[in-house]
Amino acid sequence: MTIADRWLLPDGVEELLPEQAGQVESLRRKLLDLYQSWGYLLVIPPLIEYTESLLVGLGHDVDIQTFKVVDQLSGRMMGIRADITPQTARMDAHSLRGDGPSRLCYAGSVLHTKPKSLMASRSPIQIGAELYGDGSLNSDIEVISLMLETLTVSGIDQITLDLGHVGIYRALIEQSELTADAEEKLFSALQRKSSGDIESAIQEGISDSKLADMMRALSTLNGDRSILDKAKVLLGAAPAQVLSVIDDLSLVADQITSRMPSVNIYFDLTELRGYHYHTGLVFSALAPGHGQAIANGGRYDDIGEVFGRARPATGFNTDLKALLGYLPKNSSDESVYSILAPDSYGLSDSDSLSLWQTIQQLRANGECVINALPGQQGAEQYRRHLVLKQNRWLVDKT
Amino acid sequence: MTIADRWLLPDGVEELLPEQAGQVESLRRKLLDLYQSWGYLLVIPPLIEYTESLLVGLGHDVDIQTFKVVDQLSGRMMGIRADITPQTARMDAHSLRGDGPSRLCYAGSVLHTKPKSLMASRSPIQIGAELYGDGSLNSDIEVISLMLETLTVSGIDQITLDLGHVGIYRALIEQSELTADAEEKLFSALQRKSSGDIESAIQEGISDSKLADMMRALSTLNGDRSILDKAKVLLGAAPAQVLSVIDDLSLVADQITSRMPSVNIYFDLTELRGYHYHTGLVFSALAPGHGQAIANGGRYDDIGEVFGRARPATGFNTDLKALLGYLPKNSSDESVYSILAPDSYGLSDSDSLSLWQTIQQLRANGECVINALPGQQGAEQYRRHLVLKQNRWLVDKT
Repeated sequence: MTIADRWLLPDGVEELLPEQAGQVESLRRKLLDLYQSWGYLLVIPPLIEYTESLLVGLGHDVDIQTFKVVDQLSGRMMGIRADITPQTARMDAHSLRGDGPSRLCYAGSVLHTKPKSLMASRSPIQIGAELYGDGSLNSDIEVISLMLETLTVSGIDQITLDLGHVGIYRALIEQSELTADAEEKLFSALQRKSSGDIESAIQEGISDSKLADMMRALSTLNGDRSILDKAKVLLGAAPAQVLSVIDDLSLVADQITSRMPSVNIYFDLTELRGYHYHTGLVFSALAPGHGQAIANGGRYDDIGEVFGRARPATGFNTDLKALLGYLPKNSSDESVYSILAPDSYGLSDSDSLSLWQTIQQLRANGECVINALPGQQGAEQYRRHLVLKQNRWLVDKT
Repeated sequence: MTIADRWLLPDGVEELLPEQAGQVESLRRKLLDLYQSWGYLLVIPPLIEYTESLLVGLGHDVDIQTFKVVDQLSGRMMGIRADITPQTARMDAHSLRGDGPSRLCYAGSVLHTKPKSLMASRSPIQIGAELYGDGSLNSDIEVISLMLETLTVSGIDQITLDLGHVGIYRALIEQSELTADAEEKLFSALQRKSSGDIESAIQEGISDSKLADMMRALSTLNGDRSILDKAKVLLGAAPAQVLSVIDDLSLVADQITSRMPSVNIYFDLTELRGYHYHTGLVFSALAPGHGQAIANGGRYDDIGEVFGRARPATGFNTDLKALLGYLPKNSSDESVYSILAPDSYGLSDSDSLSLWQTIQQLRANGECVINALPGQQGAEQYRRHLVLKQNRWLVDKT
């Protein structure tokens, strides 16, 4: 075992030194205060739970991302959470049991067995907000607005909002007679936006030519606002709910544009992220120059059913570490803002006590006061010093 | 699988609902701000590390408390941290590499395979501060003072500070010719304060009668300030370093009493908690009516050696969840302090936009504004409402 082996961190696992840690802490507070001002109450779910509660519903998709350990007390399997959202769904369904809308927010570490994408962290600090108990578009618009505010507070300009809705694809698939395997093939081809594979999956599985045409059209329906009108024409023969979903997308886009005119909205009707648990609108936010979404969310109604209570639900989350890159740099050089207090060695008892009292008073007033330690070098780097003048301790600027 | 099984949390694993979560968050901020005002810089070490770095030095003692998982990327063993202190030691030794004193603080979740004591949490939120690079008593006094301030800020009165020093027992043991087994037996008997077992371990292992007498005396040396004078007499034949340790204890007690006269100091010269890694003063703080220490710490010099850099070190930590019981209750009833804004359904586009702008302005001013959702019940519970009067949105008190 060499010393180098001992300080190596696992891939995708980061430590944050003072400068970055200070930025993350400051952003964490700003965002939780923001969520609080929107009526979202903080909850602190545990880092670990039985897999039986952690990996149901929403959590099912994160099973392979979740580290598992055996509980030595019960012999049962536990998981270190890979996502906090399913935990808040459990809390809403079981622990809180409110009748009206319930707004919750959280911030905490999660762990992933493998990184979600090439550059992603395996130990993100997930922060997000969830709104339970209301199925109206108002909730979707509120949550999307709060997600965009989150990025604005983090210093991100030129945000792109990516909007989709799993209901369109789902309605078309319900019309088809695709086997599970054939559907899986089509789903995967659409996710990869691979036109050759989409075409072959359609030809193999969908005999109804109108439906096949609509599925083909769907794969092309992404872009700016104009694709919604195009969708109304190309999906004209689809079940009524498809047209109503397209109207919903228009309405959401109108509201967001009216509130935040600088946000660029991109529609992607084959955006099927989280298809297995999402039930309506899905959305993500992108920052300029980054291919990966920096925040995402969507509607996941009735997820609490496995905990005994089906409720409408929508929410979003992001990773504080991923937002770090957008933040202004703080100075962590303590000599700039701190006051250096002398080592009390050699002082009389009364001078020593009055030094302590002066220091405590300065700290209570928001100053950072550092005690010099015996033989400490570099005192001249501090711009302010506590000095004894005529029996009083005063801050002396150099 | 019943629904009840799904929401059951493992023993010693807690979730914090809004009221408690709000208290923990508020205390977390106050304490980190306190540490900042003393010059302690925040670091955020990762939740998971290779066991090879996590379980060396200080971490060795927490091996059996640490959950282990295999890293799917490297095939190496990783541990979910059971203690953050060893991580800051690694950061000081390797990542920061400063020459002068380095003051670090942290707050984060840890996990324990088994509870440390009967009522202890297995998922504490550890918060603490560490001072590296100075071996003088000044550092011990600074860290003890900060630990006591931590409890005061948390609303705890009538604190008892428990002071010990592993150097006394260690010096006496070095004089003896005890085998490892016999020493283990004596150590265990002293920890349990079992006088019969102490006597039999002494009789079996220590032939030098002066040394045997001193070891016997040591087991009785706990109580108030007067036991230090008693120790000077009873341990008069001990190596010089023992007497110097007793003087150190007096000096620390003088300083703490001068700064915080209300703190009750208790000396326990056989307090050997963390004996395998502590190298000097050890201390803990107790609150009235609680047998278990609520915060503890001590000196652990040279712990960074395994990471390539031996430095003096002292620090303390506590558990935010354990401090919860001492905090004043907050109200989490949002209807008391929030403003309810109406559902925008049916409003003109311009009224809807001005409603949004008014809400955002109120939130930016620190108010909590909640959007009513379609059909939401209980609006009358809110004391303040946003209403449209003569084309302006105003806060109406009921």
